[in-house]
Amino acid sequence: MSAAQKIENPLLDKNLINAFVDGVQNTLTTMAMTESTPGKAHVEKNFTAQGEVSGMIGMIAGSMKGTITISFSAGAIFCILKNMLDEEYSEITDDVTDAVGELTNMIYGSAKTTLNEMGYNFDMAIPTVISGSHKITSYHSGATLIIPFNMNDGGHKFFIEITVE
Amino acid sequence: MSAAQKIENPLLDKNLINAFVDGVQNTLTTMAMTESTPGKAHVEKNFTAQGEVSGMIGMIAGSMKGTITISFSAGAIFCILKNMLDEEYSEITDDVTDAVGELTNMIYGSAKTTLNEMGYNFDMAIPTVISGSHKITSYHSGATLIIPFNMNDGGHKFFIEITVE
Repeated sequence: MSAAQKIENPLLDKNLINAFVDGVQNTLTTMAMTESTPGKAHVEKNFTAQGEVSGMIGMIAGSMKGTITISFSAGAIFCILKNMLDEEYSEITDDVTDAVGELTNMIYGSAKTTLNEMGYNFDMAIPTVISGSHKITSYHSGATLIIPFNMNDGGHKFFIEITVE
Repeated sequence: MSAAQKIENPLLDKNLINAFVDGVQNTLTTMAMTESTPGKAHVEKNFTAQGEVSGMIGMIAGSMKGTITISFSAGAIFCILKNMLDEEYSEITDDVTDAVGELTNMIYGSAKTTLNEMGYNFDMAIPTVISGSHKITSYHSGATLIIPFNMNDGGHKFFIEITVE
């Protein structure tokens, strides 16, 4: 298929949303034997992410530009890393941010593969990890789709935020 | 000129570095009557930005991908905003992050205009502002060029970091 799949409104594009939800679930199941359930997604015009450690990746597909952010509370990422690395963490060390960078990359990579097989043309980008008690504000004319996830064991939450221009 | 200017090694590309240094100086002079002097730039393979408020923007030029980060200490941004808005801030409010988003956009826009006039093909992207006592780590196979700036009045410092894949 040579013609690129057109993205009319990425925040309403079921393929795109499903690819990221599947990317999260597959990555966490494969890497960390951690099952998680997506909650109800909602859209906000001006959204500020808050978390203790967030993976962020720029998203480029033709003329569409956006950002994917995965925000973890400390409890959520410690629980994932216990399963993934069999290590108990109680603070956000360089090992923790490295693991979040790797997970972000794998989630984006998984969604990108699914979407490009459907004819989209997502490009690879550099993941960035923000740690420390932080806020992330994007300045764009678009909106943010927020998908909460509940971890089946322990009930910790994390969030995927898809912002598009 | 139709052929895009090739970027061989962006961190050694004088045009690119000068465009960002000029972008910073012009934006701060125009918007905040604040003079600043660039110090000696250096390259680090694995770099973690630390600041109290940072503006970040993805940078896309053909196959080159990277990130520009402008990291301010609280003292530096309060001093800039006093000149820019005639307001005294003592904490990083939404107004402060909004202003950092705007400055980041203007600095990137200024550098982009200069570079595209020279035949580069930089594209616009979404600025993101990180606030709170934070660390930013990029996961890439490339390196980061760090340019420190000294503010001529008061001696506060801020940093521009250019990371490329």
